[in-house]
Amino acid sequence: MLTLTSDFGAPYPAAMKGVILSITDTRLVDVSHEMPRQDLPGSAFWLTRILPYFPPAVHLVVVDPGVGTDRDVLAVRSGDHVLVGPDNGVLVPPAETLHEDPTYYVVDHDDPESSTFHGRDVFAPIAAEIHDAGIDRLETEDRFTRTNDFETLTLPSANVEKTSAAGSVLTIDDFGNAITSVPGEFIRGSFGEEIEVNGKRVPIARTYASEDPGTALVTVGSHGNVELAVNQGRGAGAFDVDRGDEVVLRLSGVN
Amino acid sequence: MLTLTSDFGAPYPAAMKGVILSITDTRLVDVSHEMPRQDLPGSAFWLTRILPYFPPAVHLVVVDPGVGTDRDVLAVRSGDHVLVGPDNGVLVPPAETLHEDPTYYVVDHDDPESSTFHGRDVFAPIAAEIHDAGIDRLETEDRFTRTNDFETLTLPSANVEKTSAAGSVLTIDDFGNAITSVPGEFIRGSFGEEIEVNGKRVPIARTYASEDPGTALVTVGSHGNVELAVNQGRGAGAFDVDRGDEVVLRLSGVN
Amino acid sequence: MLTLTSDFGAPYPAAMKGVILSITDTRLVDVSHEMPRQDLPGSAFWLTRILPYFPPAVHLVVVDPGVGTDRDVLAVRSGDHVLVGPDNGVLVPPAETLHEDPTYYVVDHDDPESSTFHGRDVFAPIAAEIHDAGIDRLETEDRFTRTNDFETLTLPSANVEKTSAAGSVLTIDDFGNAITSVPGEFIRGSFGEEIEVNGKRVPIARTYASEDPGTALVTVGSHGNVELAVNQGRGAGAFDVDRGDEVVLRLSGVN
Repeated sequence: MLTLTSDFGAPYPAAMKGVILSITDTRLVDVSHEMPRQDLPGSAFWLTRILPYFPPAVHLVVVDPGVGTDRDVLAVRSGDHVLVGPDNGVLVPPAETLHEDPTYYVVDHDDPESSTFHGRDVFAPIAAEIHDAGIDRLETEDRFTRTNDFETLTLPSANVEKTSAAGSVLTIDDFGNAITSVPGEFIRGSFGEEIEVNGKRVPIARTYASEDPGTALVTVGSHGNVELAVNQGRGAGAFDVDRGDEVVLRLSGVN
Repeated sequence: MLTLTSDFGAPYPAAMKGVILSITDTRLVDVSHEMPRQDLPGSAFWLTRILPYFPPAVHLVVVDPGVGTDRDVLAVRSGDHVLVGPDNGVLVPPAETLHEDPTYYVVDHDDPESSTFHGRDVFAPIAAEIHDAGIDRLETEDRFTRTNDFETLTLPSANVEKTSAAGSVLTIDDFGNAITSVPGEFIRGSFGEEIEVNGKRVPIARTYASEDPGTALVTVGSHGNVELAVNQGRGAGAFDVDRGDEVVLRLSGVN
Repeated sequence: MLTLTSDFGAPYPAAMKGVILSITDTRLVDVSHEMPRQDLPGSAFWLTRILPYFPPAVHLVVVDPGVGTDRDVLAVRSGDHVLVGPDNGVLVPPAETLHEDPTYYVVDHDDPESSTFHGRDVFAPIAAEIHDAGIDRLETEDRFTRTNDFETLTLPSANVEKTSAAGSVLTIDDFGNAITSVPGEFIRGSFGEEIEVNGKRVPIARTYASEDPGTALVTVGSHGNVELAVNQGRGAGAFDVDRGDEVVLRLSGVN
């Protein structure tokens, strides 16, 4: 199984699929080609929340604002998974989520046909070849060199105290929910109570439908983080936040 | 074969696919993850028009505004098809379209990991397990209980007389065509004539290209219903209608 | 393998998949269902750039503004590939890119169920049947008639001189890059220099990231053509161009 993730939209991913299927006859699964565009932490966040649900696979990840520069190509062995993509940090959080101690390899490769689409010309063939040869080849083939010298990327964190927490908006999902860096544990004991979000007082709901349609609320999203939402509406708008914005949460009844 | 339908956009459906593929190694086919958001009749309408083209399959359907509430989980046997999804009515019209006499089962399940993503935590594993075990297990396994007590949902209908019809807009498709609840039979004998739509007089066309680009028209869509369209344009705009709006049609030459 | 291309968005392509899978049990690969809507040269352009990366396959292509009119149905044998779609020119450029001397067949077919969705009712079953029977049947079955009388379509070209070139915008991609009809060779020797685009002076960059984020630039896209781009931005907006607009390029230092 080989999964594909990119920020390409359509139709560029199809060229990657053609390349892969010319090399290996495996199942392809699109994770998404609508990753937050050229947003490394946002894309890495989603991968940490999605890839762990997959059985062992080769995961091709192409979110690559530096395409055409001399950044390396990485293959990362993480348990029985392998991630293939650019050395810009985007592989690191998901690799560390899949397995506590991933192994990183720089991949030697020929000069690509294009300077602007390494997904097609570099990453897709490498991912397909690793899948086709078997992931143990990472240890035995000369083109793969173990490295500890790679770009790291740390997902935005949060400063959590007993009754307040400060974090930021990691990404906005397709429903308009603003996903914050604050762990869901901060509010999990307070369902039914109220909370202040950047000064705005809203209910802490166990689920969207706990409140009337149109009501702004805070909940724990399926990703495990605190989420700013509106039942059947768009939380990002109601809370007036965008990616990267600071979010200060204050549990009510406490001043 | 297992099909997936949701109103999730991206990237949430990928987590459902990972869950399914961890349980069963079957073909996955996306019906759509762009179903009209949290719109049960709109989504049910599309399913009635699409699922009948599929060979026997398990169909996972997650349009679920009440996620996290105590609504039941249903599996519906409809001929050689099985639909799995929330007990909110969305499964009923497609199940009754696939087979005249479907059998409904409430599915017993463990408490899910999340309160906001039962597609991943409840429905996907159930659909995968039913596919993996074979659909006849619905009759033999204790976790499936036959029921006649489920939410129903009736698609919006139309009041059709000889020269006039009153219905509503079921949904707007990606081309901007406004699909009405009026059966296509109402106009099928009148191609080339004119019709009044909410007072606006337009041609009844057998196909979009019968009229010049930019011309508002009425036709019978591929779904069999009367459709308000514009050749190479957006009918919903030209007729100033949105989902749910009333549509009154009056065949011309008759007052 | 059977690929699918359309301008349908969602959910109409699913009905085509159901039809195909009811006929043949092959791998389906979506090229894209977001082709430039009812835009034959734009869609044909993308297909010339994507299909050559695929292994031999049957390619179903439904961009069909004339659906329901009496235009023919074509199957085109191009090397080991077969393209199936409407006789409106959209198949011609990709067929001629896949193989220098394609063979065109008119396909005889029954009257379709609908006048507005021949993708589902005509093209999908024909593509599936050709795949299922084997592509050599095009020569032996009566329903396929060789023809030299089909609609042609020539992609917009460019007038290239030593220091200037005049062409047009073929299409805008999902990143907002404006892809022109000017061959990349025109600028490939001038990376690092400047160029005038419709009077606006910008750098000629080997890759997006050669310039600071937000900088307008000209590069050679992965499709091989000159592209008007902005690093991490939208070129079409920065250069104020849309599909079909004229583009005049003038290498700098030369007046």
